[in-house]
Amino acid sequence: MSGRRDFIKKTGLITGASMVLGSDKLFADAREASAGKGRLKLSFKPYTLNLRHAFNLSTSSRTTTPVVLTEINYNGIVGYGEASMPPYLGESHETVLKFLSKVDLSGFDDPFEMENILNYVDAIEDGNRAAKASVDIALHDLVGKIIKQPWYRIWGYDPSKTPDTSYTIGIDTPEVIRQKVKEADPYKILKVKLGRDTDKQMIETIREITDKPICVDVNQGWKDRQHALDMAHWLHEKGVVFLEQPMPKEQVDDNAWVTERSPIPTMGDEAVQRLDDVLKAYKVYSGINIKLMKCTGMREAHEMLTLGRALGMKIMIGCMTETSCAISAAAQLAPMTDWADLDGALLISNDVFKGTTVVDGKVTLNTLPGIGAVKI
Amino acid sequence: MSGRRDFIKKTGLITGASMVLGSDKLFADAREASAGKGRLKLSFKPYTLNLRHAFNLSTSSRTTTPVVLTEINYNGIVGYGEASMPPYLGESHETVLKFLSKVDLSGFDDPFEMENILNYVDAIEDGNRAAKASVDIALHDLVGKIIKQPWYRIWGYDPSKTPDTSYTIGIDTPEVIRQKVKEADPYKILKVKLGRDTDKQMIETIREITDKPICVDVNQGWKDRQHALDMAHWLHEKGVVFLEQPMPKEQVDDNAWVTERSPIPTMGDEAVQRLDDVLKAYKVYSGINIKLMKCTGMREAHEMLTLGRALGMKIMIGCMTETSCAISAAAQLAPMTDWADLDGALLISNDVFKGTTVVDGKVTLNTLPGIGAVKI
Repeated sequence: MSGRRDFIKKTGLITGASMVLGSDKLFADAREASAGKGRLKLSFKPYTLNLRHAFNLSTSSRTTTPVVLTEINYNGIVGYGEASMPPYLGESHETVLKFLSKVDLSGFDDPFEMENILNYVDAIEDGNRAAKASVDIALHDLVGKIIKQPWYRIWGYDPSKTPDTSYTIGIDTPEVIRQKVKEADPYKILKVKLGRDTDKQMIETIREITDKPICVDVNQGWKDRQHALDMAHWLHEKGVVFLEQPMPKEQVDDNAWVTERSPIPTMGDEAVQRLDDVLKAYKVYSGINIKLMKCTGMREAHEMLTLGRALGMKIMIGCMTETSCAISAAAQLAPMTDWADLDGALLISNDVFKGTTVVDGKVTLNTLPGIGAVKI
Repeated sequence: MSGRRDFIKKTGLITGASMVLGSDKLFADAREASAGKGRLKLSFKPYTLNLRHAFNLSTSSRTTTPVVLTEINYNGIVGYGEASMPPYLGESHETVLKFLSKVDLSGFDDPFEMENILNYVDAIEDGNRAAKASVDIALHDLVGKIIKQPWYRIWGYDPSKTPDTSYTIGIDTPEVIRQKVKEADPYKILKVKLGRDTDKQMIETIREITDKPICVDVNQGWKDRQHALDMAHWLHEKGVVFLEQPMPKEQVDDNAWVTERSPIPTMGDEAVQRLDDVLKAYKVYSGINIKLMKCTGMREAHEMLTLGRALGMKIMIGCMTETSCAISAAAQLAPMTDWADLDGALLISNDVFKGTTVVDGKVTLNTLPGIGAVKI
């Protein structure tokens, strides 16, 4: 087992890919594999991600993130999924394991009935969005593997059109910030967390070192709309390209007021969880930040993307701290987004998947089927 | 050739299906078939559909419909498409053949890049929506055949959830109407074209024979909003379930006024051509009638469906007079619609495809890959 793991580690992703494809050869073809009397079997286990740096938001700080890793097995084909539960979103190992223990997929014998399956999962209980995403992602991985295509191809997207991904720099001391900017060397865009009294100092510290474009995420940290607008103008002059969730989501009119006047686009994040929220965000923010863990997974994320684009809104695909499993799943949508913030797996030291990588600062999709991730 | 055709005719759809699958066996698997150095080759030919009955709308009458049949060949796999050009939409054999002659797919070597390919086709020239749909449908058929799945499965829909389809009864004499109602025996919903001075007589003639639910399509025929609302109330009492395009699409405020007060849902048809029109139709109509020939094909239709549902609108999938090629393509979306009006192929006497059928008045999807149609 460890010999095999070492072999895969040395030979890397390509070998992983051929192993997946090779095993698929056992299953005659998509039709036979999917038309039979198979049963969908869900399994899951808790795991804890270790963060390379303590992660400071405007309201919390932490060094680990709990996740749950899922698998759906169908006729021997296995789809992988993941739930990531940063504590401020209210889910935990306990809630996710409890929710997943209620998910009974034995009533379904066709993984292609994604609408039915995911509606069933969604109806089990309110909330539990990361838990639901872990089923959705595993199901997408499974279906993609059955039809032997990655989802960006099933959706008809051009993999070369992925945007540059940003590298997140939390609220910290100037020393740590300088160190992080160095670590971000391969990235062409930096993402900075603001919303404390050190905002201008953070940006000025970064600007002493680099002229790279910066995205700013305030995480609802500003309470006064005039201050938010003044900052938007100041940040615009400093080469900031957008402003995420400038004010508390409940201050709808204030966010809309800032959006109307801001020289740079505003993006709704905390205000935009699921599909229903996209229309509510229209004209309140210039765009939306879609995250699988907020919206119950790839299926609803794809719908939010379609809706947001139809409304003429900017689209960003974001993440939590996650393994390369959930990151690779989110990356499937990246070709149709304006910005990607998919550094979640790069912020952890104990990833258990290989998948979408960042090459020269750009989200780089591979040709693996499904979500494009293999276990390491 | 004619022997083979007779054989297929006698043995029907199932044999057609196995032949398609059998020929796919020649191509190792989806990956190999799609990753190679193939080229997309588009071919097309004009054809004229003969209508079983002269088709009377509020503004025109005719006995034939011009169509263009398309094929996209990729490594020997052939996808079928179709443009249907009822004259009131402005396209013709001439315009479609002219447009298609400008479509050069030789620059694309991967049919999965549907977003790029269809954006290219859409950008060639404004309008030409049926011509564009004929490329879109053939491309979807091709990609579905490569991955060996029908599109309703790729989209994750449940084929058992298709709605009853309606049978269209044009504006005609009481005698012809009685005859058509008899022909509509297998259908559980009738669709009636109103918008002349015989409106009440039409409905009353039908109600002498049957109590089946009726959908009413006015095709912009009413000009006065109070008359439209009075009719909505009268029709509601007569068991009419919805009212399509009651007034001219330009009378936006009048249509919205009727929608707000109508006891039955209103559906935008002429007012809703493409994706951009869905948001404009929000709160002007209760729902939208999606047709492939209006919206450039399956990809945009799927987006309109997603958007319309997200806006809480009713969804209807409609058609022109078309062969079973375009009807089968449209039917792939049917499981997610509230109503289907997919009788287009049943109104013609010289269909050249077998595909989606109507069984006991319900759109019945088959398991053929792609759009689910085979040549006869």
